[in-house]
Amino acid sequence: MERYRTPDWSSILLPTVNHAEKSVIREMFQRLRSGDIISFAGGMPDVSMFPYREIEAATDQIFSDHSHRVTAFNYGPTEGYMPLRQWIVGHMRSLGLILEPDNILITSGGQQALDLACRSMLRPRDSVIVAQPTYLGALQILRTYGARIVSVATDENGPLPKEFEAALCENVKFVYLVSDFSNPTGLSISSERRQLLIELARLKGIPIVDDAAYQQLRYAGDNISPMISIDQRITCDNDREPLENGGVIHIGTFSKTMMPGLRVGWMAAPKPYLNKLIPLKQATDLHSSLLNQMITYNVIKEIFDDHVAALCKAYGEKRDCMISAMHDNIPSQVEFTTPEGGMFVWVTLPKGSDAIKLLDLSMKQAKVAFIPGAPFYANAEDGMRYCRFSFSGVSNEEIFEGIKRLGELLTDVLSGSRRGEN
Amino acid sequence: MERYRTPDWSSILLPTVNHAEKSVIREMFQRLRSGDIISFAGGMPDVSMFPYREIEAATDQIFSDHSHRVTAFNYGPTEGYMPLRQWIVGHMRSLGLILEPDNILITSGGQQALDLACRSMLRPRDSVIVAQPTYLGALQILRTYGARIVSVATDENGPLPKEFEAALCENVKFVYLVSDFSNPTGLSISSERRQLLIELARLKGIPIVDDAAYQQLRYAGDNISPMISIDQRITCDNDREPLENGGVIHIGTFSKTMMPGLRVGWMAAPKPYLNKLIPLKQATDLHSSLLNQMITYNVIKEIFDDHVAALCKAYGEKRDCMISAMHDNIPSQVEFTTPEGGMFVWVTLPKGSDAIKLLDLSMKQAKVAFIPGAPFYANAEDGMRYCRFSFSGVSNEEIFEGIKRLGELLTDVLSGSRRGEN
Repeated sequence: MERYRTPDWSSILLPTVNHAEKSVIREMFQRLRSGDIISFAGGMPDVSMFPYREIEAATDQIFSDHSHRVTAFNYGPTEGYMPLRQWIVGHMRSLGLILEPDNILITSGGQQALDLACRSMLRPRDSVIVAQPTYLGALQILRTYGARIVSVATDENGPLPKEFEAALCENVKFVYLVSDFSNPTGLSISSERRQLLIELARLKGIPIVDDAAYQQLRYAGDNISPMISIDQRITCDNDREPLENGGVIHIGTFSKTMMPGLRVGWMAAPKPYLNKLIPLKQATDLHSSLLNQMITYNVIKEIFDDHVAALCKAYGEKRDCMISAMHDNIPSQVEFTTPEGGMFVWVTLPKGSDAIKLLDLSMKQAKVAFIPGAPFYANAEDGMRYCRFSFSGVSNEEIFEGIKRLGELLTDVLSGSRRGEN
Repeated sequence: MERYRTPDWSSILLPTVNHAEKSVIREMFQRLRSGDIISFAGGMPDVSMFPYREIEAATDQIFSDHSHRVTAFNYGPTEGYMPLRQWIVGHMRSLGLILEPDNILITSGGQQALDLACRSMLRPRDSVIVAQPTYLGALQILRTYGARIVSVATDENGPLPKEFEAALCENVKFVYLVSDFSNPTGLSISSERRQLLIELARLKGIPIVDDAAYQQLRYAGDNISPMISIDQRITCDNDREPLENGGVIHIGTFSKTMMPGLRVGWMAAPKPYLNKLIPLKQATDLHSSLLNQMITYNVIKEIFDDHVAALCKAYGEKRDCMISAMHDNIPSQVEFTTPEGGMFVWVTLPKGSDAIKLLDLSMKQAKVAFIPGAPFYANAEDGMRYCRFSFSGVSNEEIFEGIKRLGELLTDVLSGSRRGEN
């Protein structure tokens, strides 16, 4: 019996897998399962807003047509369900972008689109530029590929151009940005800054991967064209085919505008890139679920604009509640963003604060959860004094109550009476 | 305008992506769209056998319960839907394996399970042992990771032990096998050979990834325990937790027993391995569609055994038709396997034959499609005289007619009258 060896997984697995840790968000959710805690932690949708009736009707429509249900349950094309790809082309035309279905790959959520982008381009020790802070899921993915993460500091208009330009000099394979209502800060890159960043990247021929997950969720301010539309406008030759020679890879998703559980997202990209990516998507999982693509298509073609408008109204009110509650309850030493859309408010504690310790206290005493800022930073220590609050998945009442309790705790902590405990 | 550079994708993309070619199967399907061709090409299910009524009832059940539909449409756990994982535990217990839900990860089809296994273990130039021939999708995945593929010759009982043992000496990260009714040959690894291969791999501490996609589809002969059950029986210490120290990673799927379009598969694996893999699955796509997992669960808990029995009866008849038609129509210089299950018959043409040229002729003259053997070989030239025929997705009438036409063509070609054309 002894002569049989159990595989030594720690030596068999790649170092990037071995070092994979449970994410803070995963641990947070595990803690949330127990106890009566108001959670601003996950970037969760308001489940009461899911278009259940329309999903049911859309599904019935598929089941009642034999050719549709065969399509839904059989193997299908790797590129995705053609009517959905065509709908996305029309949708993106309304955002100022000219493309064709061949520029669209359907993915299992935006997450998979980002993962495929990384997988197609990254070798261990390749560099990727990100804004600081950035989506922690992106940092996780980049780490699984062993990428060197180059963080560029941001102001209220996005990554700082001088730092961005300097970062482009290194061994950079691509730039990753969340240009609209960023996760975690809730802030967007301004139109002028987008143009400047695209121009700088294009001078070096470095592609930009724009994660536009929150692009549709605007509650205030003026629309800003997606990076990919601006790229097409300023750099593409009109004589060429649409998106033949673009430099931006756009990631879209229905997780924020419809429902995340169906895992339907997309990538819009230049054809020379996408044609290479499709065999990689095929190797990964053959194709994304046809049933889910068809349900999504049947729902969005009927209600997309109206549903997004209803979401923006509801989420906009939640945002107003949170901002107002923070104004009323949070001590003045604590700063917070006022996002024009998305799901998040970004809170800055006084210098020297430790948001992870605050979270621990908050879970126990205020019974309020949020995500500490550290995991949104390539270097966790840079993010110790920040917190991300999500308002999308909670009720207005929970927002008022939770922020009130947190405000009391913060007042208490910052008045110094508890400083010693930290 | 000129100063903006279009990204030079050929230098940005990894070599493994750059060299990704459209697969023979993809091209085949594109050719099949035009023309009145009987196709034995894809390993397609019989779409008339999909349990439409049960799927519809299962879906209604989800939609009619508020907490179920919230679960179906919201974000969910990376590991998968717990009732489905528990069902799989019970299912695998009936195959002689003791495990717990923590040994199960739900994936987007078996393909994703294999992809995750590769991604967790493979660096460019790492070696992987495969049987020769093997599933072409596996070869495609391995190539995207830049793996060195070590092919081991097979006899009717599976990979040859001496060659297998010799191959294990190299820089091998894992062994990939399709132990039941292999794609492409239709043949299984015998029980004794399984035991021997496991023992040989265990002596070196090298894991075996067993792609058990066709395991349930047996039409003749005696059941053979899955590799993972044999591994547990011969090598695991009973005092330990189930599958704590196993050496086999088992890939299962509902694509062959239920419907592939929902993309629901699973990996059963030792916990020390699976715990590392879950963050990688999370990075890849967060989790597989909850709706699809719930539909699958609701259907299988009601009808799995009966449905598999009905499938085996129908596919068994198709197999009998194909074997009988081949006996009656195919010239004696051409050999073919008689599989006890699965979806494929493997055809061996006389030495010197070129199955790709035969396919071209067959598409044009006999109007019959199949997959030439080359893409199932790491070295395509080794597979030039083989063809894979799938019987699962065609009617008995199509099988008789298609094999008759092919037999005429083969008789014609092999009689020498057309040799000159090749």
